[in-house]
Amino acid sequence: MTYVTFPDNKELDFVAIGRLCIDLNANEINRPMEQTMTFTKYVGGSPANITIGMSRFGLKTAFIGKIADDQMGRFIADYLQRNGIDTNNVVTDRTGAVTGLAFTEIKSPTDCSILMYRDNVADLKLSPGEVSEALIAKTKVLLISGTALAQSPSREAVFQALEYAKKHGAVIVFDLDYRPYTWATPEEVAVYYNLAAEKCDIILGTREEFDMMERFETNPEHSDQVTAAKWFDYSAQIVIIKHGKEGSIAYTRDGASHRADSYPAKVVKTFGAGDSYAAGFLYGVMQGWTLERSMAFGSASACIVISSHSCSDAMPTFEQVSDYIERCERGEIVPS
Amino acid sequence: MTYVTFPDNKELDFVAIGRLCIDLNANEINRPMEQTMTFTKYVGGSPANITIGMSRFGLKTAFIGKIADDQMGRFIADYLQRNGIDTNNVVTDRTGAVTGLAFTEIKSPTDCSILMYRDNVADLKLSPGEVSEALIAKTKVLLISGTALAQSPSREAVFQALEYAKKHGAVIVFDLDYRPYTWATPEEVAVYYNLAAEKCDIILGTREEFDMMERFETNPEHSDQVTAAKWFDYSAQIVIIKHGKEGSIAYTRDGASHRADSYPAKVVKTFGAGDSYAAGFLYGVMQGWTLERSMAFGSASACIVISSHSCSDAMPTFEQVSDYIERCERGEIVPS
Amino acid sequence: MTYVTFPDNKELDFVAIGRLCIDLNANEINRPMEQTMTFTKYVGGSPANITIGMSRFGLKTAFIGKIADDQMGRFIADYLQRNGIDTNNVVTDRTGAVTGLAFTEIKSPTDCSILMYRDNVADLKLSPGEVSEALIAKTKVLLISGTALAQSPSREAVFQALEYAKKHGAVIVFDLDYRPYTWATPEEVAVYYNLAAEKCDIILGTREEFDMMERFETNPEHSDQVTAAKWFDYSAQIVIIKHGKEGSIAYTRDGASHRADSYPAKVVKTFGAGDSYAAGFLYGVMQGWTLERSMAFGSASACIVISSHSCSDAMPTFEQVSDYIERCERGEIVPS
Amino acid sequence: MTYVTFPDNKELDFVAIGRLCIDLNANEINRPMEQTMTFTKYVGGSPANITIGMSRFGLKTAFIGKIADDQMGRFIADYLQRNGIDTNNVVTDRTGAVTGLAFTEIKSPTDCSILMYRDNVADLKLSPGEVSEALIAKTKVLLISGTALAQSPSREAVFQALEYAKKHGAVIVFDLDYRPYTWATPEEVAVYYNLAAEKCDIILGTREEFDMMERFETNPEHSDQVTAAKWFDYSAQIVIIKHGKEGSIAYTRDGASHRADSYPAKVVKTFGAGDSYAAGFLYGVMQGWTLERSMAFGSASACIVISSHSCSDAMPTFEQVSDYIERCERGEIVPS
Repeated sequence: MTYVTFPDNKELDFVAIGRLCIDLNANEINRPMEQTMTFTKYVGGSPANITIGMSRFGLKTAFIGKIADDQMGRFIADYLQRNGIDTNNVVTDRTGAVTGLAFTEIKSPTDCSILMYRDNVADLKLSPGEVSEALIAKTKVLLISGTALAQSPSREAVFQALEYAKKHGAVIVFDLDYRPYTWATPEEVAVYYNLAAEKCDIILGTREEFDMMERFETNPEHSDQVTAAKWFDYSAQIVIIKHGKEGSIAYTRDGASHRADSYPAKVVKTFGAGDSYAAGFLYGVMQGWTLERSMAFGSASACIVISSHSCSDAMPTFEQVSDYIERCERGEIVPS
Repeated sequence: MTYVTFPDNKELDFVAIGRLCIDLNANEINRPMEQTMTFTKYVGGSPANITIGMSRFGLKTAFIGKIADDQMGRFIADYLQRNGIDTNNVVTDRTGAVTGLAFTEIKSPTDCSILMYRDNVADLKLSPGEVSEALIAKTKVLLISGTALAQSPSREAVFQALEYAKKHGAVIVFDLDYRPYTWATPEEVAVYYNLAAEKCDIILGTREEFDMMERFETNPEHSDQVTAAKWFDYSAQIVIIKHGKEGSIAYTRDGASHRADSYPAKVVKTFGAGDSYAAGFLYGVMQGWTLERSMAFGSASACIVISSHSCSDAMPTFEQVSDYIERCERGEIVPS
Repeated sequence: MTYVTFPDNKELDFVAIGRLCIDLNANEINRPMEQTMTFTKYVGGSPANITIGMSRFGLKTAFIGKIADDQMGRFIADYLQRNGIDTNNVVTDRTGAVTGLAFTEIKSPTDCSILMYRDNVADLKLSPGEVSEALIAKTKVLLISGTALAQSPSREAVFQALEYAKKHGAVIVFDLDYRPYTWATPEEVAVYYNLAAEKCDIILGTREEFDMMERFETNPEHSDQVTAAKWFDYSAQIVIIKHGKEGSIAYTRDGASHRADSYPAKVVKTFGAGDSYAAGFLYGVMQGWTLERSMAFGSASACIVISSHSCSDAMPTFEQVSDYIERCERGEIVPS
Repeated sequence: MTYVTFPDNKELDFVAIGRLCIDLNANEINRPMEQTMTFTKYVGGSPANITIGMSRFGLKTAFIGKIADDQMGRFIADYLQRNGIDTNNVVTDRTGAVTGLAFTEIKSPTDCSILMYRDNVADLKLSPGEVSEALIAKTKVLLISGTALAQSPSREAVFQALEYAKKHGAVIVFDLDYRPYTWATPEEVAVYYNLAAEKCDIILGTREEFDMMERFETNPEHSDQVTAAKWFDYSAQIVIIKHGKEGSIAYTRDGASHRADSYPAKVVKTFGAGDSYAAGFLYGVMQGWTLERSMAFGSASACIVISSHSCSDAMPTFEQVSDYIERCERGEIVPS
């Protein structure tokens, strides 16, 4: 059964708006960052990673964002272009903003953390007047990411992008991607996540992220059904709620819930799992696959990324994911 | 024909959220403020004035707002109470915020201006967690006012109030009341006014205010029909667009437009005209009157206020408005 | 004995730098401000009041400050000019700053308080580049006031003015005039008050103000001698420490201390006492009078102001002070 | 001739206050940073580098500063301790501030630049109440660094440290180290640099830095003599003005000027030259050497650092500098 219908005759498959930053990944891992002496630079940011993933799968993609007027910003724009992503709506800041940074600490495959630099970052300075209506008019899908709602004017830029997407019939995907920094209060988080989610067709997030959105509501047992039902009263067709190791569940408007098996992986670190899952899942849905197959494709995509050192650079191709699934099915991959 | 149906069995008729401030009205008028030596203190703020008006008409009212912890704040709370307005949801700021001030300058009856003090004001510090869902649950009408959207956390408090009003079935009125100060950019104005207006049943504003909301849209001829039609696609039942001296027009979902005659007045100043018009009009609509009769009642109410020195203090009773209309009809009042 | 020598052949007698604001004095007094309905507007701000006083005594004066580009600012500039004060270095703000306000509450002659509006005020936006070296070069005395040190760029403007005054040989007077609002921390108060006081010839303040400056020092018994001795190690010639009702003491570099009798007054309110005292005292010192006579003149000047409704408007002339002293000596004035 | 007398019977030789940060040095050099993929982490910040240098020379040192409560902050504290620097007055921030970062770009040995992260940095949050008077009481020398004057409360912490140093007789060294970021205006730079310099015994800076301090002064020909003479009227004994490739000149109160020859070096990058020069020069002066010998020792120290990849890690020992000088004198080192 098809839960979402994508518009025909659009030039682009996928456009994302939001965070563009730099990951500085520890080279010496399995230790605290105090003991890491060298770092490797990658493009980062959840919507950037997803877009890179979609591009690797062969889709036509573009990005809406803002970069610093410095070496880091230029590196990001260049990397996106080299990955086939249209950057005509990637605007350069002229106010002296910096590029957001994420230093990763990998103490063990399951004990990972991030040291963030998010003060005065360029990506949060994207303004609504800089969002191209023409670009959004020609895409099948617009993906928004929660971190872009954290501050003005990026917050307003996202709402304006939603307005354009509604007007031109794009399917809207909301990757909740909540990060505590840069938000003024938890109350703001709840208010703006809810205002945005009302307009979205597909919503993906963890149980904890949905809990945070229900700050002013009544769902004492943190019921997925209560959560999903709320959004079906608005625009949502699919609500995916992730329960960590217990797996993800896709709820649909018809009252059904959908699960997929997960695959084994030789885990290096956990970063990037959600982004590669989202890319794989959305790719499947856009191909008209069942939700179960789409979710499995997302899981395999995530396994590949968490077995690697980077996030963006490790985003797999269709062939890589297909091959990974086959090898798992043949029992060639066992968990670390 | 009835355009809006108000819920039954609600304890309260009317609740407003937003600005509470102090007007300091020039005593020596018809001169520049430089030459005014004394000022008289009144309660002010558009939603406060409208609520006072509704209370004078005999409706059961309450206010949601925030006051400074000082003599000005206490004066405001006391004045509202003396006017029969429930102030249980008027919260006192504890951060050292001040009461907003509006010094009025009356150079002539048609040349009036305001000197505003809006830095660090208490009313913009109302937070979403301070808005009482229980209060909104028991009112027929919630009125929001655009100035409360100008800054966080008041902005989020208004969106949370809208959420509660939707949930509990209150009729929502949006008095655009745009004031340029305290807004960061014109783009923010457009984004948040539109997000709020989507959820409102009755929208009142000037042509200029609607133009400002259409910053990212296409309405090159500033057509009222185009403007009103947009909101009928969302929740609106009535859209009133004010054209200054040329009068106001009420647009309704059925495609009709409605006008009322205006009354003569001996004008002292123009301040408060919009607030008293809104109170009179909404009172009429809530009584089930035709839009034409409601608009006429609003106009007469406005005439009374602009013939007086104050805004809030001059808000008339039902008898005063009725009497004014009768006297106009008998030709006893002629324009100044 | 002469403690301070003033430079000859200077065009101006007295220049002050700092706060210019508006006092809104309660007309209905002896009650809480909640019950005051009308207010009268006066020019205010400690250094403004002192300069007005000096001008009334017949000295040639000028002011260095910044006013808002509004009716309040223009009223201030006009009032200073009408009082014979050179306003060529009173700059108009162009950033949308407002005029500082002080609403006075007079519950009783001894229970007075002030409700201050000090957010985004023009007077604190005076920048060092706007201070006229040429003006300071031609004055005998420069008076600085502590409130102007509370924020940048006014803080730096004062330090630049001190630099010019040192360079051109002006006698520098520091009126501590500490007000808690607008300062970020008590530590900042201590640091900048001390940095400024090092460069001053005459320092006037209350015991509490000097205590606040000694935050990082050791003076456990709050000894005036310890306090004064510190400043004699820098530039000070006279240090006046005010002990409220117990009177003021002038300490001098020779180790002496000086007191003067006080006069009776029919007190209306306490505001403005310090400013009129400073004006009277400095006038006396500039005439070459003994410190005792100068202090008595200051006291009588203060008595006149606290018997009146305003501060600035009530600043007396030489004849009025002389007459007041004579009437006191004849026993014609008895305390209220 | 001895120009500065250092106090006897002090436990510590050298204490610095100010910036502590992280340098992220490009591993792949001689290219734009866009093409650098990995970075190596070092402790950085001019006063930190100088203190490390002094400690390597065998002096007893301590640091006054503030670090972020994160992995970067802990790395810094640990590195200082491992280098024998007392960190009892290195305070940990609890407000969520970050560690300042400096990414270095080395396009060629003579074309180097820095990409700075200075928003919300811990080092600028040191407050005056956190500065230990007891620590300053027991040092022969206090070094202050201009970047610590850029913002509150670090600015006030430096002035409070100066007050303690004056009180307890420490020799005060001012390393101008001007960096444009984080300062609000060039006017602030001039005002606070001058206020601090008034209290200092030894002042080191480039001609451009002194020019910036003379914004409100008259030195149209940028004369070193005019510049130095100003500071000899205050506390200064030695003023070193650096003229880039043309070498440095030390001016002394007796009207003399002093120069030293420079040494050849195989330059990798220019970063750190000033810090190692300062350490070497100050070490010499503290040993009672002539200014010429001290300056030569500073130059050789700088040569060693600019021949290396890092700044802090490359700070040489006494033996290394002595050996470098000997090798130069034997003609074994030739310029790159």
